Amino acid sequence: MGAVKTKRMPRAVREQQMLDAAVQIFGQRGYRAASMDEIAELAGVSKPLVYLYLNSKEDLFTACIRREAAALVEAVRAGVRRDLPADRQLWEGLGAFFTHTARNPDSWAVLHLQARTHGEPFAAEVTAMREEIVAFVTQLILAAAREALPQALGCARAGRHPHDPDLPEREVGGLAEALVGAAESLAAWANATPGVTARQAAATLMNFAWAGLGDLMAGRPWSPPEEPADG
Amino acid sequence: MGAVKTKRMPRAVREQQMLDAAVQIFGQRGYRAASMDEIAELAGVSKPLVYLYLNSKEDLFTACIRREAAALVEAVRAGVRRDLPADRQLWEGLGAFFTHTARNPDSWAVLHLQARTHGEPFAAEVTAMREEIVAFVTQLILAAAREALPQALGCARAGRHPHDPDLPEREVGGLAEALVGAAESLAAWANATPGVTARQAAATLMNFAWAGLGDLMAGRPWSPPEEPADG
Repeated sequence: MGAVKTKRMPRAVREQQMLDAAVQIFGQRGYRAASMDEIAELAGVSKPLVYLYLNSKEDLFTACIRREAAALVEAVRAGVRRDLPADRQLWEGLGAFFTHTARNPDSWAVLHLQARTHGEPFAAEVTAMREEIVAFVTQLILAAAREALPQALGCARAGRHPHDPDLPEREVGGLAEALVGAAESLAAWANATPGVTARQAAATLMNFAWAGLGDLMAGRPWSPPEEPADG
Repeated sequence: MGAVKTKRMPRAVREQQMLDAAVQIFGQRGYRAASMDEIAELAGVSKPLVYLYLNSKEDLFTACIRREAAALVEAVRAGVRRDLPADRQLWEGLGAFFTHTARNPDSWAVLHLQARTHGEPFAAEVTAMREEIVAFVTQLILAAAREALPQALGCARAGRHPHDPDLPEREVGGLAEALVGAAESLAAWANATPGVTARQAAATLMNFAWAGLGDLMAGRPWSPPEEPADG
């Protein structure tokens, strides 16, 4: 009886369609301006069904952040072949990261901008993802340092001791934070700058980071001047 | 008649005291949890006076962001002597940045975290400051590139053309974004990691960035492998 309003479809499939639509609307309009009406319309379902499945605008946004964060982390992990030399691993990881953020600009806008600008429950979701990526990059830098150790040992007498058990660990943590911060910043810039490809963004960061990290791993740090930077 | 409740003091002085207190409370408690009662108490004034001078919690927060952003930009500009070689300028700029964020951790928490996580009017204030810093760093990198040009020319036949009028400008924009993103990320990390000094954070980023930028400016970019990073 009556018209069939929605096609029969498993709940899981319909939920993904709602999330697809929500990521697009949240990414393009921003969290506050996004309307549940528009999301339901884009997903091709009724608004009550969106509320039935995902409860509230807040919960829908949280579900978007979780799904998109997991997809980004998975894309980076999958892009890196762990049996390659460290610079190739970093290059492939950066390539995977910038390819994913370029192909999914709404997803990146949700994670980098929207999730961080609308309060702490959402920001905490992104912080968890970020910590996972920093840990992954830290492992990558440690592997690179182990690879470079024989070279670095040759330079150890020039001042830097590669066996110092404390400084390197802290410095590696700092380098990983710097690299992740640079990548986040560049992805936003690449998506906002017409004509910048994922490969160009990856190459820019690789030039910035690797030649720098490469010199560092080989025991050739930049030398600060003698006088202190501040009083 | 009656007790003197507040000492006579010029409005401008009292307003700065309110902002000092507000930055501390916003930075430590977060924007939402911060109470106007606590801010007034810390500033040593009545709550109605805070509202009289700064209108609302939103306007008080905006005033904090503007004042702290201007102070940070000024600290970095003042820290750089433009007559030095480019690597020294960058080192001094990073030193000034990390010294300022280490000495004013509540201010940095307001700018980096709170202002970006509580909606777009606040986030736009920080975006404006960030654009100013990116423009400053872009000029610094361009100056470094001009300094390195004679060296780079020697390497031009190896593939990279330092006179290409389009690519370098875009690449410099990308490098500036990467450097600023790395610095933001490292400042948050340094303030959250016990025992990391401003000088160490500056040295970590200098190692990461300069040896990398230095190789790049000298016409020695990292070479990507032949096969593309993605399909």
